[in-house]
Amino acid sequence: MNESTPLDRPFSSSSAHAGGLLTVDLGAVADNWRHMAALMGAKEAAGVVKANAYGLGVEAVGRVLAAAGCRTFFVAVPEEGVQLRKVVPGAVIYVLSGPIGSSEGLAPFLKSNLRPILNCADQVALWRSHAPGAAPYGLHLETGMNRLGLPEFEARAMATNLAPSLVISHLACADVPNHPLTEEQLRAFTELRSLYPTARASLANSAGVMLGRDYHFDLARPGLALYGGNPLPHLPNPLAQVLTLQLRVLQVRRVDTPQSVGYGATYRAPAGTVLATVAAGYADGLLRSLGNSGWGLLGGVRVPVAGRVSMDLITFDVSEAPSQAVYSGALITLIGRETADSTEQAHTLDELATEAGTIPYELLTSLSRRYARRYVGGAGS
Amino acid sequence: MNESTPLDRPFSSSSAHAGGLLTVDLGAVADNWRHMAALMGAKEAAGVVKANAYGLGVEAVGRVLAAAGCRTFFVAVPEEGVQLRKVVPGAVIYVLSGPIGSSEGLAPFLKSNLRPILNCADQVALWRSHAPGAAPYGLHLETGMNRLGLPEFEARAMATNLAPSLVISHLACADVPNHPLTEEQLRAFTELRSLYPTARASLANSAGVMLGRDYHFDLARPGLALYGGNPLPHLPNPLAQVLTLQLRVLQVRRVDTPQSVGYGATYRAPAGTVLATVAAGYADGLLRSLGNSGWGLLGGVRVPVAGRVSMDLITFDVSEAPSQAVYSGALITLIGRETADSTEQAHTLDELATEAGTIPYELLTSLSRRYARRYVGGAGS
Repeated sequence: MNESTPLDRPFSSSSAHAGGLLTVDLGAVADNWRHMAALMGAKEAAGVVKANAYGLGVEAVGRVLAAAGCRTFFVAVPEEGVQLRKVVPGAVIYVLSGPIGSSEGLAPFLKSNLRPILNCADQVALWRSHAPGAAPYGLHLETGMNRLGLPEFEARAMATNLAPSLVISHLACADVPNHPLTEEQLRAFTELRSLYPTARASLANSAGVMLGRDYHFDLARPGLALYGGNPLPHLPNPLAQVLTLQLRVLQVRRVDTPQSVGYGATYRAPAGTVLATVAAGYADGLLRSLGNSGWGLLGGVRVPVAGRVSMDLITFDVSEAPSQAVYSGALITLIGRETADSTEQAHTLDELATEAGTIPYELLTSLSRRYARRYVGGAGS
Repeated sequence: MNESTPLDRPFSSSSAHAGGLLTVDLGAVADNWRHMAALMGAKEAAGVVKANAYGLGVEAVGRVLAAAGCRTFFVAVPEEGVQLRKVVPGAVIYVLSGPIGSSEGLAPFLKSNLRPILNCADQVALWRSHAPGAAPYGLHLETGMNRLGLPEFEARAMATNLAPSLVISHLACADVPNHPLTEEQLRAFTELRSLYPTARASLANSAGVMLGRDYHFDLARPGLALYGGNPLPHLPNPLAQVLTLQLRVLQVRRVDTPQSVGYGATYRAPAGTVLATVAAGYADGLLRSLGNSGWGLLGGVRVPVAGRVSMDLITFDVSEAPSQAVYSGALITLIGRETADSTEQAHTLDELATEAGTIPYELLTSLSRRYARRYVGGAGS
């Protein structure tokens, strides 16, 4: 399916002037999906592309997953489904939030052939009163997350009247080793899904897939793993890194006398320090918590963040970097490798999230629209 | 200037189904700008609308500020300037990052009549070799932030050859009471700006305006204050609140037996607890740090966040809210008032930022595109 869409494209001409470059390796996304699909054996792996494919671009990611063989997708809200439908005309798309509000809220589902996940009795009633009888839908069964989903008594009461195409539940603690709730949820889901014998069943997120066959059921819903995050953080990451994030140096300065740097004057630079300020900040999703603790790679050397992260700017202390690498226009690498043949790599996605005091999901979804985005690799790579 | 553009518009028809509603009071933005302009007396107040007007929409905010009398704008990067130019055809627009890269990087400046702030000798050289001689530009003089700007020796060396329309510098600690660096920067800027007698001078951000006339020079650059943030957090906030943020309840559930809630099972709900899950999460800019500590207003009662913030969902413990207010489709208010005539208000912008462990700037810029956005109030309100 290589020929269908040109997935390799160079940076746009304006990217030479962009403050940040985000390279998304779609080949790695496809490889990661295939890795999860292989773990599923004869069962199916879907692709979770909610929140604009965790911030990486739902259209590009949707296309490459479909080309790799993914036939079922999950998004959070109907608007995302409408956007995805344009690039995966033949796939099944489930919308996790279900329809919100009145019967008007059903329009995007019917128009773009989206299947809602019905999460509560209200949504079930809304769908059954206004959607055509044959329109397929999924049903969310609550098993311990206590967020959305039909509680057990409703799941039992409604079973004889409903014929969903899919029943799902969410694991709350699949990434925590031996958390007792995980087995409890497995037991509860196994029992509840048997009330809907004609429906396919789906319980596992990325971490759930790793937990083994008991958790696989008919369909898994990997998300984080597709984007290179480690589903089980206490074990080595089996997935390929997808992202390279590089920030453009706007200006280099040598400090002649001891100086403070940035808002709040929190960093003290001794005389002789060389500082480089890049054109990206927390408005670009680089969390403020990286201030005075983060680092990047420049010319193969780790350069620390100097002072606070500003809205549009971050300053690095580049004194230790080789001078040939230090110039205005250079790129400091925060995630991934500096060049394709670099041996050392800057942070992985998980490492940078840890450094920022959060989880890879939040870091991913906060990555900004202001970066020049480059997609490399394609379905066949 | 009321008639020029319709600034009051109702929620779009789809907003009844949106997971979150962000109401931006443009009348309050205009009032806040006028407040800052009044403090400046005969001197000028610009409008800082970088990072998409701190996330609130550069076009809507640009229009209303221009209608209120704002004639000078600051953005971070040229792309933002190109977008702003469409709605403020006659205004002066400065781009704080200056031109990046090669001479190609100058194109948007010339095409959209944007004035770069030149931050270093390289940018000065680039501009002077490729821009028409008469094209106006600003010059950034470094006085203690050590982020961008010409150091003193360069500022002196270049003074005889340059005729900028504006010289600027940034205060690093203006919001910290009596920080010694603030006065040092004032002294340094006063001296350096005298090297450029034909240029207008600008030092103050929102906090700087509050510090009094010594800091005003010709032009101030308020940003945060326009959006209702408190420039001097140790004093009462003189600005009007701009935002109301409300999240749609997807589902209400009563817990029959003690249960845990959400990822990691970090919240224990006793039997009888009523939980409401809303359709917004950290992918919508509601920082994960609000998990198990934030709260919203529902029916006039404070309802706490139950468990972790998920990517697309947050659960609240609504047991204490009046039952008439608790239904699927209800709105939980996180910032601002529940209705126009509510006496109690949920968080101010600053309060919610503090609760999330960050500053209002980061919270503002992380607010999401997935909200249905409603603009109320206009230039004349």
